[in-house]
Amino acid sequence: MSHNTFGHLFRVTTFGESHGPAIGAVVDGCPPRLTFRREDVQAALDRRRPGQSRFTTQRREPDEVEILSGVIDDGAGLLTTTGTPIGLLIRNVDQRSKDYANIAQSYRPGHADIAYDLKYGVRDHRGGGRSSARETAMRVAAGAIAQLVIPDVVIRGALVAMGEIEIDRARWDWDEVDRNPFFCPDPVAAKEMEAYLDGIRKAGSSIGAVIEVVAENVPAGLGAPIYGKLDGDLAAALMSINAVKGVEIGAGFAVARLTGEENADEIRAGADGHPEFLSNKAGGVLGGVSTGQPVVARFAVKPTSSILTPRRSIDATGAEVEVSTKGRHDPCVGIRAVPVGEAMMACVLADHLLRHRGQNG
Amino acid sequence: MSHNTFGHLFRVTTFGESHGPAIGAVVDGCPPRLTFRREDVQAALDRRRPGQSRFTTQRREPDEVEILSGVIDDGAGLLTTTGTPIGLLIRNVDQRSKDYANIAQSYRPGHADIAYDLKYGVRDHRGGGRSSARETAMRVAAGAIAQLVIPDVVIRGALVAMGEIEIDRARWDWDEVDRNPFFCPDPVAAKEMEAYLDGIRKAGSSIGAVIEVVAENVPAGLGAPIYGKLDGDLAAALMSINAVKGVEIGAGFAVARLTGEENADEIRAGADGHPEFLSNKAGGVLGGVSTGQPVVARFAVKPTSSILTPRRSIDATGAEVEVSTKGRHDPCVGIRAVPVGEAMMACVLADHLLRHRGQNG
Amino acid sequence: MSHNTFGHLFRVTTFGESHGPAIGAVVDGCPPRLTFRREDVQAALDRRRPGQSRFTTQRREPDEVEILSGVIDDGAGLLTTTGTPIGLLIRNVDQRSKDYANIAQSYRPGHADIAYDLKYGVRDHRGGGRSSARETAMRVAAGAIAQLVIPDVVIRGALVAMGEIEIDRARWDWDEVDRNPFFCPDPVAAKEMEAYLDGIRKAGSSIGAVIEVVAENVPAGLGAPIYGKLDGDLAAALMSINAVKGVEIGAGFAVARLTGEENADEIRAGADGHPEFLSNKAGGVLGGVSTGQPVVARFAVKPTSSILTPRRSIDATGAEVEVSTKGRHDPCVGIRAVPVGEAMMACVLADHLLRHRGQNG
Amino acid sequence: MSHNTFGHLFRVTTFGESHGPAIGAVVDGCPPRLTFRREDVQAALDRRRPGQSRFTTQRREPDEVEILSGVIDDGAGLLTTTGTPIGLLIRNVDQRSKDYANIAQSYRPGHADIAYDLKYGVRDHRGGGRSSARETAMRVAAGAIAQLVIPDVVIRGALVAMGEIEIDRARWDWDEVDRNPFFCPDPVAAKEMEAYLDGIRKAGSSIGAVIEVVAENVPAGLGAPIYGKLDGDLAAALMSINAVKGVEIGAGFAVARLTGEENADEIRAGADGHPEFLSNKAGGVLGGVSTGQPVVARFAVKPTSSILTPRRSIDATGAEVEVSTKGRHDPCVGIRAVPVGEAMMACVLADHLLRHRGQNG
Repeated sequence: MSHNTFGHLFRVTTFGESHGPAIGAVVDGCPPRLTFRREDVQAALDRRRPGQSRFTTQRREPDEVEILSGVIDDGAGLLTTTGTPIGLLIRNVDQRSKDYANIAQSYRPGHADIAYDLKYGVRDHRGGGRSSARETAMRVAAGAIAQLVIPDVVIRGALVAMGEIEIDRARWDWDEVDRNPFFCPDPVAAKEMEAYLDGIRKAGSSIGAVIEVVAENVPAGLGAPIYGKLDGDLAAALMSINAVKGVEIGAGFAVARLTGEENADEIRAGADGHPEFLSNKAGGVLGGVSTGQPVVARFAVKPTSSILTPRRSIDATGAEVEVSTKGRHDPCVGIRAVPVGEAMMACVLADHLLRHRGQNG
Repeated sequence: MSHNTFGHLFRVTTFGESHGPAIGAVVDGCPPRLTFRREDVQAALDRRRPGQSRFTTQRREPDEVEILSGVIDDGAGLLTTTGTPIGLLIRNVDQRSKDYANIAQSYRPGHADIAYDLKYGVRDHRGGGRSSARETAMRVAAGAIAQLVIPDVVIRGALVAMGEIEIDRARWDWDEVDRNPFFCPDPVAAKEMEAYLDGIRKAGSSIGAVIEVVAENVPAGLGAPIYGKLDGDLAAALMSINAVKGVEIGAGFAVARLTGEENADEIRAGADGHPEFLSNKAGGVLGGVSTGQPVVARFAVKPTSSILTPRRSIDATGAEVEVSTKGRHDPCVGIRAVPVGEAMMACVLADHLLRHRGQNG
Repeated sequence: MSHNTFGHLFRVTTFGESHGPAIGAVVDGCPPRLTFRREDVQAALDRRRPGQSRFTTQRREPDEVEILSGVIDDGAGLLTTTGTPIGLLIRNVDQRSKDYANIAQSYRPGHADIAYDLKYGVRDHRGGGRSSARETAMRVAAGAIAQLVIPDVVIRGALVAMGEIEIDRARWDWDEVDRNPFFCPDPVAAKEMEAYLDGIRKAGSSIGAVIEVVAENVPAGLGAPIYGKLDGDLAAALMSINAVKGVEIGAGFAVARLTGEENADEIRAGADGHPEFLSNKAGGVLGGVSTGQPVVARFAVKPTSSILTPRRSIDATGAEVEVSTKGRHDPCVGIRAVPVGEAMMACVLADHLLRHRGQNG
Repeated sequence: MSHNTFGHLFRVTTFGESHGPAIGAVVDGCPPRLTFRREDVQAALDRRRPGQSRFTTQRREPDEVEILSGVIDDGAGLLTTTGTPIGLLIRNVDQRSKDYANIAQSYRPGHADIAYDLKYGVRDHRGGGRSSARETAMRVAAGAIAQLVIPDVVIRGALVAMGEIEIDRARWDWDEVDRNPFFCPDPVAAKEMEAYLDGIRKAGSSIGAVIEVVAENVPAGLGAPIYGKLDGDLAAALMSINAVKGVEIGAGFAVARLTGEENADEIRAGADGHPEFLSNKAGGVLGGVSTGQPVVARFAVKPTSSILTPRRSIDATGAEVEVSTKGRHDPCVGIRAVPVGEAMMACVLADHLLRHRGQNG
């Protein structure tokens, strides 16, 4: 991972700011002869798109993706990858830069704008510039391409905690995820979240969340030793999502309380000759290499710093000010992070599949 | 990060197995004209070395490091870096491969050996081969070189939880860390850990832990946007340590329960013209870029899979067996992960300092 | 260098095919606070643009570049870089895919189309797809950005040989380069080339060329040892240009005939404290590191394979055919390679400046 | 390529100076389950070893390679790769640093020592430190490992010109290469070189050379578009060899004089269904991708700067001095560059095979 590119053989480079003319991505290293339609990528983008419920920012972005290269169109919209880089472009439509006029010279506490200014000595204050969650649209588009590389792998994400509300895993239902505006797999918790987040939203506040992403049918053997571990790359990929402050694999931080006996996933001879693990504390990864079990990752998303309550801060001259943000924002950015987490999982797995195939034939 | 190399401008490549003739590292990209002594690297290694208390493996490795290149010796042992790659070598001394005879053909539940075999179709069963914690000695040596690049940055690690025992942060005392065999900053908790881990050890069991690493005096501005974020690279670096299953920055997973008001670190004008943050939920990183606050990371280490209690597993032929491990092992591998976490922090910060200086002049 | 990205800290990724909707580039790692205008990039593109004389392809491409990200516009067209990736886009306008109908199923001898098909099992036959010289427009745009990073470095290219015609170095005049359609620094040779290339052009044939690129005011110390040598990276960069089959630094292949006495550039104490070299056989690079002398590189460009004369070949089914190309083409692609060579030199030097600054402070 | 590492999936990192304790390499990404013996690597090293005739430096280095990791020994010396990094080490034995006492403070004209000093502000003057040809021993060792990855590919190098003497290609005989001390394929030219180089040697002078490396049975499809071209990587790899000033593929610089008709390699339907090319001006690479034809590369090696004739130079204080070198040196370093060129070809092809297999399955 370097600057704005991630991946090794399956490589994704993104560019673009929240309030510039466009955002885009280059997906490089995609194998040839894979087929898809522009609508497949669009469908993935639509899942992440803002403004679909009152619980996400009211910015209206159609997020129409244009595929600029790397494919041959059969004339009926069926695209075949050629092995060359796939250029993707989305024009920004609904930028209201004036929303940001009042914070142009101030730093929002908890926001990256002060860090960018400390680093670069210049910042694009409109909507957070490059640090905006808008960049994640391109990850979702890239993730749709990545999914072509690993067609048998099923990747699904879910929001498993929001503020004080945690789901009950006994009620986990993947179908439920698409039935509520939170990607929540527990219908009871989803109901609670609705009331809870309405309160947050009306108060002009925001709240954190935890997302879980599960990849099933992952081939065994993905991941390289030591610094190219599958979980190391997953950690970097998930931590690179805006507002993420923690990443777990399998049992995660809970392992600190486990004994060796409790933690070790016992193994039996599976019916099909593959090892059959009796539990999945490991989250599908041992020694940085996939075992064939579902790969399970979780990440924590902090509440957005764009809130109505005035907070103490400074401005670009160093003078002390109070800052509150009136722009359109997500009361819980964790919600829209669900498809982004899925996309990052897809990209990491696609990359590691190609790398493994390269080294191992 | 790729295979066995990490870093971009400050690059570390390691090699070597637990029970082969030697382990080694190449530190590439180190700036020229830095001075140190072999003893400085050795001192760092001695902190991590096994066999220093009854709570770590009884394997006796002097871990004497040889510096093969990249420096000029003034004749009195003062070494000056030349800008060329620094080769480091440690001979393995106390390999008792016979300890592993009984598990040569079986897979330890929770251990990487099955994953390596699934990946490569061959494994070095002696002591875990490449997946052994022995590799981390080279990280510590590399970390000592990295520290030369960031001389003003103070990096300290501590074990903050072991099994059921968590430290009381009100009692945190950095000096205490070197007074007990656990790198524990809380003298009361350290006492409890002693009795607790004796019990684990005598039962032939093992236990997990949580480590915290804090870097002070980190310059603002380190970290690149999106996929080269400081916290993204830290997450990858810490997750790459053996047995780590979770990584947090700042408030970490706790952010899921925070509101925007609670999470945002307010800012005042500091006496010296720098921004003064009133709290550090961010862990010193906003938008992937350091703010000048202490960088705070935590990681969870699972209990080692090498335990005496027989566990259900399979062997290389797929037959069902019971496995228990009689070799010398750490009842809590988290202890020796403390200096390794410090080393990874040093390597990541050194790399990002060079990268920032490169792009920003 | 990897797939479609080159550079380490100053990184350029390109995408797009000759006959797709657009070509584009992402310039990542550009330092912040550099100022330029869109017209500066456009001017560089205009130098390379086809259709400006009868000696280049008659394809009419305005090559209007759009700058999509990474800059702040002051409202009057002055752009300031922000340190984030600069997205560049050029829409293709004058695609006449039907020109290629007759070669859709056949392989042009000497052309990359058969190689792409052997590799990917699919190819974009229209205008050579990704292997078209059209991709080099993006390199020129990226080179204009790179030049901002090395403002004092003066980079100039010239065509020094075309077929049987070689320039006389005694007549070298940089001003002459912009006065003839060949970028030729020798007015006498330029005159000869005009008649010579008219003959080639009318015969539907093509011819090779040699380009020389000179960078003056290059700081000493750029280049990393062994595999990151300045001349190693230059060699890769120049060889990556379409149709290039050879690269030389300084005296180049002529060194094979020199003795040590003839080859060594003697050194005297310069007036300003810098070393003064009495000759420049080294081409400004010793041991892979710049010495402060002008960096001199040459590269040979083969004649395009798109010619009217029928040549023996096969088609995609393996059947033997005769192929001739009727599309619009350059009788000497070497001509338009001059600005491309300059751009690659700029990108390599910018990258190495950032790398050197990173490691050396 | 970066600093001291090259390759993408098959990665080689080298370290060590001419007069330090040892030189070494880490070969990372080698596929598992390949078998070889230490003697195979040693045999490759022995070909490059100095002191085997009066025409190479009289430094006596046994160059005994130690294999430190990445393999399992069956007890009888048969080594099986495990997929983990292969550590290689050679101890320096015959360092006579006093030979360099007289040039410790002066810069040899044409040598990298001044460039290293300009870059790093410090240099290891003993034997050229890192810029010594001694580093190439590790490339040869790595090349022997690379050859395991491409067992069917036959790579052979030859010296085709030395000073004024060029070989007659009509007399090319690969068997002759091992019968003379020059790796010269033409017995008549080899005889002439003997007398010629004796003259150079006795005069304390040195001379340049041209090397050709040919790889046969290279699979079609190796090489990635644009910046990961097979010939681009070859150019970087060969230019990275000490003293190389030019690289050619196929017809090389001669293409400048060719018409499209002369340059295009015509194609017929081969007996085995593969395309059959009627000539090989392309040197086996079209559009950066291998075609199945032999890959042919040439490179020019300058004469060593270590000569007896006094040359004008300066010392580290900037004072003007005369420099002559009395240490042991090669009158024609091009000779020992032959096995190094073969090794670089092997490494590049191995890397591209893995990359191709990764992307293309």
